[in-house]
Amino acid sequence: MDKRIIENYTMLFDFYELTMGNGYFDHGYKDKITYFDLFYRSVPDQGGYAIAAGLEQVINYIENLKFTQEDIDFLRSKNLFTEDFLSYLLDFRFTGDIWAVPEGTPVFPREPIITVRAPAIEAQFIETFLLLSINHQSLIATKASRIVRAADGRPVMEFGSRRAQGVDAAILGSRAAYIGGCAGTACAISEQLYGVRAGGTMAHSWVQMFPTQYEAFKKYCETYPQNAILLVDTYDTLRSGVPDAIRAFNEVLKPLGIKNCGIRLDSGDISYLTKKARAMLDEAGWESCKITCSNSLDEYIICDLLHQDSCIDSFGVGERLITSKSSPVFDGVYKLAAIEDANGTVIPKIKISENTAKITNPHYKRLYRLFGRASGMAEADYITVFDEFVDDTKPLMLIDPDATWKQKELTDFFAVELQVPIFKNGELVYKCPTLPEIQKYCKDQLAKLWPEVLRFDNPHNYYVDLSEKLLAIKQELLNNR
Amino acid sequence: MDKRIIENYTMLFDFYELTMGNGYFDHGYKDKITYFDLFYRSVPDQGGYAIAAGLEQVINYIENLKFTQEDIDFLRSKNLFTEDFLSYLLDFRFTGDIWAVPEGTPVFPREPIITVRAPAIEAQFIETFLLLSINHQSLIATKASRIVRAADGRPVMEFGSRRAQGVDAAILGSRAAYIGGCAGTACAISEQLYGVRAGGTMAHSWVQMFPTQYEAFKKYCETYPQNAILLVDTYDTLRSGVPDAIRAFNEVLKPLGIKNCGIRLDSGDISYLTKKARAMLDEAGWESCKITCSNSLDEYIICDLLHQDSCIDSFGVGERLITSKSSPVFDGVYKLAAIEDANGTVIPKIKISENTAKITNPHYKRLYRLFGRASGMAEADYITVFDEFVDDTKPLMLIDPDATWKQKELTDFFAVELQVPIFKNGELVYKCPTLPEIQKYCKDQLAKLWPEVLRFDNPHNYYVDLSEKLLAIKQELLNNR
Repeated sequence: MDKRIIENYTMLFDFYELTMGNGYFDHGYKDKITYFDLFYRSVPDQGGYAIAAGLEQVINYIENLKFTQEDIDFLRSKNLFTEDFLSYLLDFRFTGDIWAVPEGTPVFPREPIITVRAPAIEAQFIETFLLLSINHQSLIATKASRIVRAADGRPVMEFGSRRAQGVDAAILGSRAAYIGGCAGTACAISEQLYGVRAGGTMAHSWVQMFPTQYEAFKKYCETYPQNAILLVDTYDTLRSGVPDAIRAFNEVLKPLGIKNCGIRLDSGDISYLTKKARAMLDEAGWESCKITCSNSLDEYIICDLLHQDSCIDSFGVGERLITSKSSPVFDGVYKLAAIEDANGTVIPKIKISENTAKITNPHYKRLYRLFGRASGMAEADYITVFDEFVDDTKPLMLIDPDATWKQKELTDFFAVELQVPIFKNGELVYKCPTLPEIQKYCKDQLAKLWPEVLRFDNPHNYYVDLSEKLLAIKQELLNNR
Repeated sequence: MDKRIIENYTMLFDFYELTMGNGYFDHGYKDKITYFDLFYRSVPDQGGYAIAAGLEQVINYIENLKFTQEDIDFLRSKNLFTEDFLSYLLDFRFTGDIWAVPEGTPVFPREPIITVRAPAIEAQFIETFLLLSINHQSLIATKASRIVRAADGRPVMEFGSRRAQGVDAAILGSRAAYIGGCAGTACAISEQLYGVRAGGTMAHSWVQMFPTQYEAFKKYCETYPQNAILLVDTYDTLRSGVPDAIRAFNEVLKPLGIKNCGIRLDSGDISYLTKKARAMLDEAGWESCKITCSNSLDEYIICDLLHQDSCIDSFGVGERLITSKSSPVFDGVYKLAAIEDANGTVIPKIKISENTAKITNPHYKRLYRLFGRASGMAEADYITVFDEFVDDTKPLMLIDPDATWKQKELTDFFAVELQVPIFKNGELVYKCPTLPEIQKYCKDQLAKLWPEVLRFDNPHNYYVDLSEKLLAIKQELLNNR
């Protein structure tokens, strides 16, 4: 449909994916069936949850995987790969299975967001792009979710393109921010490509361009009487900005019977200025005028502004959202969890580390979310071996995998499997929801998390527990390393 | 030459660029000549300098500016723009002048990195992309420069694609990291597109894939005897990782007479482990084996590791470089500095703010760097009105613009103008240097900054002073607001 979406990102891979691929090829591991999990280790901003996003771009990537002859020539020039391997790459495509949690799902550390079952070279090769896409968009969707919750029902617009870390960070960051709950964006192309509603009115340069601020405001109201949001802080917010805005509203909008209008504040003491501006607008009969604020906002500043009873109707959030400034890395990893032997038996694999947090959960697994029947709320996530099924007709013992003496019996619950099939034998078997559908799903799922998990400071550690069978297998692998 | 470079990013703009454009068009300001400066306000990581980067992508953007009929149809659907304006956009191209400091130049707060002289709509429209490109790449080039200086001559490889904020953050981040001094990247497409040398060997999954770690190492050495860098921390670095590596080197490389090889460490106490590993390798006769380290490194950790006499030959740096994690926003802005009246007279414009740091330097200006003749070192930058020229045959009085009682007489110096012409009447008049040329230029220019400016903690505030004439004009605009 559009050139960005169909773009071929085959060559965007970390070089070792192919040095390993060539090695697997060389040693007869080409068709070895492997299982990889994509999961993350810690929640950004020390929060209680993250929002999964970026799957649609992963799907587009997989569907468009193809080395061109030019790519092969480039790879040949590195003098590392055999001709047999290069020939194999010319016909390379993804033939495996992929399961993933849908975009917009709240996810927790160390549970598989994506699971890949594929021949070794294929599963290895797609690592870089999968991580890049999921890490980036989950980061921004998570940050947006926090900021939108802080705004407490007031619309939040994503304004960050100019400070984004590159073109895709702007465009797809805006997509991810929408998933997390933003109402719209300043970035025009994000509406064109993804339907994220784009809007914007004026910069300081508009005000400076005209002989006087009043004239700049008046001209703007004349051109956009239905959409007049005036930036009032170019020279002096209370002494000239708000008075000039009121004069322009009176002279242009009032005769037209238009009540909808707005002012925007982008500097200074936002709390003080919005209260003063509100009083001036109300006194002039412009109770209908909305006040929008921007200027290096994030969830903490927004909470604080609202705590001070600032008079704010909506927020524009830029750099601190589009880069997730206070926590700009989503630490997703992609680890081998199992291989199949010649008979198709699944052999679990583990990665051990001095840093215990870096030890992986082995095996081909299933991921369940357990909801209380009475409350409808999410009580825990539960990871099993692939051939186990959760029987939610009887009580289930939850065991903390890091402190196995911590146990809790869950009763009266139902279990929902979180991963859904995306690719089967290389064929897409999933229909991506629309962006508004994803946003709504995200909102609905967040409503099923207890407030203790959602709070910003010291949130409750949501339980992600392993089945007894899986725990025993992990323990055995640790003992027999 | 390649699809990414020629891509048309016309629609990547903040929506207000066009609501303003339509307004300028409406009110007869279409051909009003304006001057905009792109500058930044604060150095990332509270450092003493930043490295300018991202100009080549700005040039490609300007050269490919073009609205398609599909774009126009989309804009029409917003019901904000007149048909006359939409027709104008169909033929839109950039017809103005642009000056910029070359990529790789050390730059300081509040001095113009790019200056644009163009009709109002054009100059306004390009704001978003200019900021996005310069902000992103300058951020990463600056961070890379810090990390490379910390590594003190040891090569630094950029490894961050999987944690980058989107595709461009990976690809162009790697380009910017190279400008800042990195030796190469893991990102294959960055070599293909920009010639940044890409490399990489194995992940933990390689080691897990084989029946034993020893076998994994042996197979790797067999496939890549000239390039055997073995990842030794999958199970237990000192008990099995290094011994298995030595055994593989002995069995595969030694009979071939190959001495070059390496190990990589990606977890644990890097300082302790590298010293122990070095001793084990040396004792086994593998003094030639290099030790590479990765694992959440940045300039501070690298300084600390070297301070502890860790045995490290090179570094792989990922997420903390590619996102500039400790300071992930470059705060460049784009502000109106002047307009021309009907007679072509340049009228300076200023933007005032409650935050004094947000007050702009008005007017169409020139930017000079002043070097001591004896030392060859950069002593100060000096900004003048466009019609002033620095006479470096006589002493020059430098005046701190924020504290005008701070004055210093500079003698025996020469002045170099930093901005060069890039576009003239919409025509490109600049030839972009190659990436290795930019890297070398950057290194040479950094060598002309005093160590006091380069240090990480509490660096000296490099002087960026205004000419007396410019200072007087600014003062007058502030008084007459």
